[in-house]
Amino acid sequence: MGVIMKSQGGGGGCGSGLAAATGCLLMLSLLLNVCLVREMMSPRKGLTWTEAAAREAEHAAAMHCSGHGTAYLDSSEGCECHSCYAGPDCSVFLADSCFAEADGGDPLFLEPFWRKHSASSAVLVSGWHRMGYSYSDQTTISKVLEERIRELHSVIGNAVTDGKFILFGVGSTQLIAAAVNSIFAPNSSAPAKVVASIPYYTLYRLQTQLFDSRDCDFKGDTAAWNGNYSGSTDQFIEFVTAPNNPDGQMNKAVLRGPNVRTIHDRAYYWPHFTAISSPDNEDLTIFTISKLTGHAGSRFGWALIKDEDVYERMKLYIQYNTLGVSKDTQLRALKLLEVVLRDGGRSIFEDGHRTMSKRWERLRDAMSVSDRFSLQKIPPERCLYFNETRDPTPAYAWVKCEWDEGQSCYEVLKSGKILGRMGSLFEAEDRYVRLSLIRSDDDFETLVTHLRKLAAAAEDGPKST
Amino acid sequence: MGVIMKSQGGGGGCGSGLAAATGCLLMLSLLLNVCLVREMMSPRKGLTWTEAAAREAEHAAAMHCSGHGTAYLDSSEGCECHSCYAGPDCSVFLADSCFAEADGGDPLFLEPFWRKHSASSAVLVSGWHRMGYSYSDQTTISKVLEERIRELHSVIGNAVTDGKFILFGVGSTQLIAAAVNSIFAPNSSAPAKVVASIPYYTLYRLQTQLFDSRDCDFKGDTAAWNGNYSGSTDQFIEFVTAPNNPDGQMNKAVLRGPNVRTIHDRAYYWPHFTAISSPDNEDLTIFTISKLTGHAGSRFGWALIKDEDVYERMKLYIQYNTLGVSKDTQLRALKLLEVVLRDGGRSIFEDGHRTMSKRWERLRDAMSVSDRFSLQKIPPERCLYFNETRDPTPAYAWVKCEWDEGQSCYEVLKSGKILGRMGSLFEAEDRYVRLSLIRSDDDFETLVTHLRKLAAAAEDGPKST
Repeated sequence: MGVIMKSQGGGGGCGSGLAAATGCLLMLSLLLNVCLVREMMSPRKGLTWTEAAAREAEHAAAMHCSGHGTAYLDSSEGCECHSCYAGPDCSVFLADSCFAEADGGDPLFLEPFWRKHSASSAVLVSGWHRMGYSYSDQTTISKVLEERIRELHSVIGNAVTDGKFILFGVGSTQLIAAAVNSIFAPNSSAPAKVVASIPYYTLYRLQTQLFDSRDCDFKGDTAAWNGNYSGSTDQFIEFVTAPNNPDGQMNKAVLRGPNVRTIHDRAYYWPHFTAISSPDNEDLTIFTISKLTGHAGSRFGWALIKDEDVYERMKLYIQYNTLGVSKDTQLRALKLLEVVLRDGGRSIFEDGHRTMSKRWERLRDAMSVSDRFSLQKIPPERCLYFNETRDPTPAYAWVKCEWDEGQSCYEVLKSGKILGRMGSLFEAEDRYVRLSLIRSDDDFETLVTHLRKLAAAAEDGPKST
Repeated sequence: MGVIMKSQGGGGGCGSGLAAATGCLLMLSLLLNVCLVREMMSPRKGLTWTEAAAREAEHAAAMHCSGHGTAYLDSSEGCECHSCYAGPDCSVFLADSCFAEADGGDPLFLEPFWRKHSASSAVLVSGWHRMGYSYSDQTTISKVLEERIRELHSVIGNAVTDGKFILFGVGSTQLIAAAVNSIFAPNSSAPAKVVASIPYYTLYRLQTQLFDSRDCDFKGDTAAWNGNYSGSTDQFIEFVTAPNNPDGQMNKAVLRGPNVRTIHDRAYYWPHFTAISSPDNEDLTIFTISKLTGHAGSRFGWALIKDEDVYERMKLYIQYNTLGVSKDTQLRALKLLEVVLRDGGRSIFEDGHRTMSKRWERLRDAMSVSDRFSLQKIPPERCLYFNETRDPTPAYAWVKCEWDEGQSCYEVLKSGKILGRMGSLFEAEDRYVRLSLIRSDDDFETLVTHLRKLAAAAEDGPKST
């Protein structure tokens, strides 16, 4: 090229004079123009088959839902609005028909965290990703994900994983079924008695009753058996939930003895909700990402299991039940835990804890105008993770209606347009209602507004009896 | 800008003469360069938070595994090699220790299809995608996906969905458990008798036995009950699998009567494997994507259910078992079915059928050198989807060892370095072995090579007795 240009000598070439120099520069500049345009027209560097999917996701994410809804990639028509909001962009507030939704435990309080960390938490799944039943080691458990889980517990200090087997399940829900059915070796004696301390998460009972196994029967409140079981050859399976759902208490095992096995449900044992006072080191403990990262929709949980035989039996149960857990979900859980672990959990737990404390403060404030409602009391504890003493900030308010109003607490709240979960669903008295505090900001705002009105009705309402 | 340029008058400006014109062009060209460079330095248009995930996926996909392995996004260290291959890029063929893997049903024969359709089948999952337990209609079932499934059955013609309820499960595996436990209303009479026709998919028995419900007992071969059940008040649940796993036969229900319910497992009723002779229109039929798109690792299946009560009971079972199916998986299944439906299934079923017919041809050819082995025989049928008469091309070869060699057929094949699944695992005689024909090309090549050698050993081996 240089040779050709040289041979052109005078004229518009690169020989001599201002005009020539200008001409020469022009040529170079035009050449650069051509190169740059070609570069821009060429496919984006390195992005080929993924670009359409990436664009599609950004398109959905960019839809304007006024902060009161979300357009998902698989939404059938644009924005899906939070309760009490409507319209194509969720901008219409339905003041009149607006009930505060505080029943279900959808953990959307962490959604803002994931939006803030959108780049690091996104996953692109290829069409050929892990089509087979197993990973390359012939198991249905991703070893990389298992390692991240061990690392997470070690960093947070909420569980000992050394010397434990880890099993994955389709949410802690499936692991609960697997544990109940596997914790004792099969035998021909009487069915094991499954118990839990009132108030307890109703699934323990519902599942065991519906699946109706010959190996176990649900037998109600643990307290009813305390003192009545020793010396008996009956086998007991005790659920120990800490923090407890619904009331946030740090329950401990009640029954003891050679025929007692405990299943520790620690779904809520994360620094969002409670001080991490000591690492769990039980025989069988169940965790889930639902209340850790907030991804309840992904259905992913795990169990830490000391005894190899129990582990093998639970593994078989999960195998025969669903052939393991979706590989798509395992990939996503891996990505999410990697984001959590990047700074040892600081961002997510500080964010989550800040949200929960603010919500508790506002909830107490809203209720403080009268003595109509009261809340559970849980003593503060030293948190090894945050290295300070903290008040607990449980996922649920366990509300007691203090006045004798001639109707259940659920009905009292409902009359004030608040939908909670009635105490009887936890085998507790109807003076109690569980209110979910982990839902979206919109749901929480509505809840506080309605609760304040209801508590303020104290001035005119009947007095405590 | 134009004004400034004009005011510069003569000199190198845009006034007059060739030099001036050159200067003017130079300025424009330089300006264009500045613009182009700025444009290139700016973030890629429209791609912001998704780009890192897209790049990461392309990086993994670009790893060179010599066509004998895959590097997945969650692979711990580069390529994961197919059996018989090793080395960092899977280029080392382990001839000596190489067994043909023909046991499991990993449907990797469709992997090339998805690689070919990489752009349309990729999905980018955002960190905040569907964190809640339910969709906006408070169910755990994506209505968009349900619609695609109805469309698919209507296009393929393999099932009537009008007037049917659709329920999703974590693979057909979970739906089988749900169906067995829900098909009869709970009652206090004797447990229902669960039966299947030998040879049958062993999970039917294993699951029912392990879960050990008071409501049903596995009672073996259907044929043993035929003729012995009418008049009895016993309840029967009959599994009808068509095409059948392992032998590909189009089984039909055997038992009839008011106390008989049937569960139709139609995992293999797709044009890859069999002629679509008429649409399924049974009371309860189970399908899965595992053998349709080949995504066994995603664990996604569905049931078509006529009776509303049965549907409600099965829904409850799935709810208490796993709180539904992963939303990540439902998103991915939606994307995959959209690719399948783009041309009414033509590409995937033509591709899949071509692969399966070629494999069957080569399998028959390899076995034809002797009479040591024989294969199942299934008559050709008219396929409504392809509108022609076709020989079936089942997912599995149901091989009979014709010689009396003093050992099981499984051992005979193993001695020739072929790992199948022994007949006894399907409650059949040990003269049978199931060989999977739906695995990767590498696995199939090894299978054919070893099978040819084994069949050729006919010349020296013992003769049929």
